[in-house]
Amino acid sequence: MVFTHQFQISTQAKCDVVDITNHVQKAVEASNLQAGVATIFCPGSTGGLTTIEYESGAIADLKQILDELIPYGRDYQHHHRWGDDNGAAHVRAALMGPSLSVPFAQRRLMLGTWQQIVFINFDTRSRSRQIIVQIIGE
Amino acid sequence: MVFTHQFQISTQAKCDVVDITNHVQKAVEASNLQAGVATIFCPGSTGGLTTIEYESGAIADLKQILDELIPYGRDYQHHHRWGDDNGAAHVRAALMGPSLSVPFAQRRLMLGTWQQIVFINFDTRSRSRQIIVQIIGE
Amino acid sequence: MVFTHQFQISTQAKCDVVDITNHVQKAVEASNLQAGVATIFCPGSTGGLTTIEYESGAIADLKQILDELIPYGRDYQHHHRWGDDNGAAHVRAALMGPSLSVPFAQRRLMLGTWQQIVFINFDTRSRSRQIIVQIIGE
Repeated sequence: MVFTHQFQISTQAKCDVVDITNHVQKAVEASNLQAGVATIFCPGSTGGLTTIEYESGAIADLKQILDELIPYGRDYQHHHRWGDDNGAAHVRAALMGPSLSVPFAQRRLMLGTWQQIVFINFDTRSRSRQIIVQIIGE
Repeated sequence: MVFTHQFQISTQAKCDVVDITNHVQKAVEASNLQAGVATIFCPGSTGGLTTIEYESGAIADLKQILDELIPYGRDYQHHHRWGDDNGAAHVRAALMGPSLSVPFAQRRLMLGTWQQIVFINFDTRSRSRQIIVQIIGE
Repeated sequence: MVFTHQFQISTQAKCDVVDITNHVQKAVEASNLQAGVATIFCPGSTGGLTTIEYESGAIADLKQILDELIPYGRDYQHHHRWGDDNGAAHVRAALMGPSLSVPFAQRRLMLGTWQQIVFINFDTRSRSRQIIVQIIGE
């Protein structure tokens, strides 16, 4: 009924967009469940989850828009409080959200043809990241 | 335990906001489940799901803000890669997200009085869209 | 299998960010379920749910960015339609989204160390808010 899967990925700094679709699909298959929902979750406050057409142009566009709306190189209160430099990462992560729910049936994620599940590392340093896939179904 | 429902809707181009609350409520009723969570999902990378007060003013405001923050009429890398014109749609969809989870009890979605579930077609052409409702409960 | 929990919180006007992690953790414990997913939902169209490092700097940064991107003090169509003044709240809520899904195992939410679950009241007046936690698991 409930199947918990976790995996690690390496990510680069400042808005690295990583395709994790295969990790999630393999978790669904390992669960031996036929139909249900995979909840993908990022434990941490400087990463986000969403879907995108995983194509270098669309990824560059997403980065460009975020760099304009929530730039890394400005003064954030978080920097003064913690001597940190990743205020933009916290704001981006809060706006994108840390969770994503994807239905599956016949053991396949019900994604569109040009739709991939991505984790985005908004932090200002490269990081190893743990991702949780919680699968509920029957 | 798991009930998969799908439906089609017609959508206009460039940020058409469509109220799908009744479709989702009917799926909950058809499931014969009393309580649980309805996961609504858009298979595709140019659409989004959220809730809003479905009132023409609030909808116009959402479109206006998105037109300012992520305008259709600028140069996107996605256009160069694919000869396409919907780069803004991909960025908007990635930021809004393709999934929404709504709890239900006593066979009713637990929405606020002025809160509707909407699908938004961000693409630059009118499209028929398939929406998935995956219902898990008891 | 399905456990429905609700609680009330007091919120201040215009982007009050309230840490509700303990409420959700207690709901998980009260469910007597070992593993599953907690779906947190805000019934209403002027509130949002996400996670953030609950630290006054990061919270101030989120408010500042939202005040620049979706300011309260401009003219919204929603104001003309309803004689209301909370158009910015509707747009912010639609972009952030009303739901959040957090996995749990061994009766603990699988959050990062510096990651808290927050409800944000975007409305222009202080409000008492009801939050729903729908827990599904085993």
